[in-house]
Amino acid sequence: MSTITSIDVRLFQVPLAEVLVDAKHGDHHFFELVTVTIQTDDGLAGTGYTYTGGKGGHAIEAMVRHDLTPFLMGQDAAPVEDLHEAMKWHVHYVARGGIASFAISAVDIALWDLRGKRSGQALWQMAGGAGRTCRAYCGGIDLGYDLPKLVDSVKGYVARGFDGVKIKVGQPTLAQDVARVAAVREAIGPDVTFMVDANYSMSVEQAIEAARAFDPYDITWFEEPTIPDDYAGYARIAEASGMPLAMGENLHTIHEFDYAFAQSKLSFIQPDASNCGGITGWLQVAERAKGAGIPVCSHGMQELHVSLVASQPHGGWLEVHSFPIDTYTTRPLVVEDARAVAPDAPGIGVAFDWDKLNAANLLP
Amino acid sequence: MSTITSIDVRLFQVPLAEVLVDAKHGDHHFFELVTVTIQTDDGLAGTGYTYTGGKGGHAIEAMVRHDLTPFLMGQDAAPVEDLHEAMKWHVHYVARGGIASFAISAVDIALWDLRGKRSGQALWQMAGGAGRTCRAYCGGIDLGYDLPKLVDSVKGYVARGFDGVKIKVGQPTLAQDVARVAAVREAIGPDVTFMVDANYSMSVEQAIEAARAFDPYDITWFEEPTIPDDYAGYARIAEASGMPLAMGENLHTIHEFDYAFAQSKLSFIQPDASNCGGITGWLQVAERAKGAGIPVCSHGMQELHVSLVASQPHGGWLEVHSFPIDTYTTRPLVVEDARAVAPDAPGIGVAFDWDKLNAANLLP
Ligand SMILES: [Mg+2]
Ligand SMILES: [Mg+2]
Repeated sequence: MSTITSIDVRLFQVPLAEVLVDAKHGDHHFFELVTVTIQTDDGLAGTGYTYTGGKGGHAIEAMVRHDLTPFLMGQDAAPVEDLHEAMKWHVHYVARGGIASFAISAVDIALWDLRGKRSGQALWQMAGGAGRTCRAYCGGIDLGYDLPKLVDSVKGYVARGFDGVKIKVGQPTLAQDVARVAAVREAIGPDVTFMVDANYSMSVEQAIEAARAFDPYDITWFEEPTIPDDYAGYARIAEASGMPLAMGENLHTIHEFDYAFAQSKLSFIQPDASNCGGITGWLQVAERAKGAGIPVCSHGMQELHVSLVASQPHGGWLEVHSFPIDTYTTRPLVVEDARAVAPDAPGIGVAFDWDKLNAANLLP
Repeated sequence: MSTITSIDVRLFQVPLAEVLVDAKHGDHHFFELVTVTIQTDDGLAGTGYTYTGGKGGHAIEAMVRHDLTPFLMGQDAAPVEDLHEAMKWHVHYVARGGIASFAISAVDIALWDLRGKRSGQALWQMAGGAGRTCRAYCGGIDLGYDLPKLVDSVKGYVARGFDGVKIKVGQPTLAQDVARVAAVREAIGPDVTFMVDANYSMSVEQAIEAARAFDPYDITWFEEPTIPDDYAGYARIAEASGMPLAMGENLHTIHEFDYAFAQSKLSFIQPDASNCGGITGWLQVAERAKGAGIPVCSHGMQELHVSLVASQPHGGWLEVHSFPIDTYTTRPLVVEDARAVAPDAPGIGVAFDWDKLNAANLLP
């Protein structure tokens, strides 16, 4: 028995070095980080977190503070999966996705941090233990970059030791997108893995046309060509174009993932532990991915997902996202020989540099 | 042009006269009401609102205040459908259901209130104008009532002039549920319309068994027998039992409704304007229901839904819910000859008694 004695939730708005643009979320000036620190009566503290592209942070904080905290105080922190399930039912009427998924995720990750600190195990071990490293690629929020800047950007990723890159697509015309894809492939050469991401800005028909046009450039996956709600639309794109598809960052409930596995003919799945129910939710999706025979990848918060992707026998690519959360931790992402290396410290292996976060915070 | 000059959001926790229990949400001691009042530069003010069973109110308030208000200030209030669509995309990454659906609903309803006040039209006219009255039934959150109290309760509904009643099912054993259903039918006689509601507490198999056991008691619909996420499961229940099914209170996006219409073999749909995107969202679902050939009903906040259900040529039953929001307005629900009567005042026809609300509010 390890009784929860306090829960501390904090909200940060962390400025980005430059304004980042994608096809559907507009301009990003900052990202939001919500941290949840849970203390237990055995003297341990665990911290979990979630993040957003700049909206919803206050609502997430409010749900953790007003709905989840009263529910969790005094409970045993150990049965994480049971608490995860109970939290979902506790807020069900206002949940089934959305803000609740982010709030539950942050709490769940804190509970896993405590679990690791109690057992002395690192996350990559607790989560599966298949390995401690995984493939990694840099994904830019670069739709607003002009062509020279885009090319410089992807060359920068390779110079930093990565062997995979992803760019945004969804320019006003397909010809512009194809020109950018061609220029990037030219710049990185034939041996670097290359993905594209439309942030669901296309209709199914547009996506089929785009997928065919991208085909000559050896694209490993076409991410979120169309809205995540259109499970069957994904299958139509995959079948008509033969292009491997990926999605998952906008799926929040296990039911949504089940529909995607059953109907969307995906080649990769990209759950984000910050919005699909934390580590418990991510591992549920990973289990389903194993059943579906496709690699489990990730979206965002590379400093945490490195442990999860590495832990799975069918782990795919780790996304190294443009939101630099890891630079506000005591161990920014480690990459060796083009592979990301999971931390070995007990718990989730992500410890925030609170002074740095407080100094950067745009909120009063 | 009617420019938005201020947005005022307020949160109330309103105590219930007694603790109410259903099969999945546990005990309800109070409900939460979030109101949004929008002022425009032509001197008008419109108020919209949403409600919860006791969780999520703070998060809804936070999203309206921190995410939707900055987005809306200075915009033209007139193109409500465009603003509705823009709000969905504005918060999309943390939305697609959940808290965002409630927050957008409250704002959307305020915009419709303004629309009616500008045009001088009542909601039943603006929304379709098919009629000003509709059928209505009382739905109790009565799973915790013992049998004598349950029977008294439904007799009370009939004594108040209603010719339709709904009770909760989901007792520990099916035999208990059947005994309660039999006793209620006995008490109300053969001519009163009778529905049951399981709040998705059953598996598909349990629901099929229950539907068959309820069949001799002339049940007009079996509401939410199983989880709202299992669209095909609903169809299996309908096909195996022949029982008419209803759901909708837990569907938030138009995509979820589309899947339900396409797959669930529902006989009634029950959108709730407080959580499916407001009046704009409710009318989108009503349009789909027309296409599917089934009546559009409602869930909760009878004081508003009366205008919507009455306005539709295929309007079904208005739920008169146990959360007495209407008693905190200047015109509690009017029922004449067993039919609910929509207000005729310009706007949504729901004006809160702020003094009464403030006096009841459990929050400081
Ligand atoms: Mg993406
Ligand atoms: Mg119900």
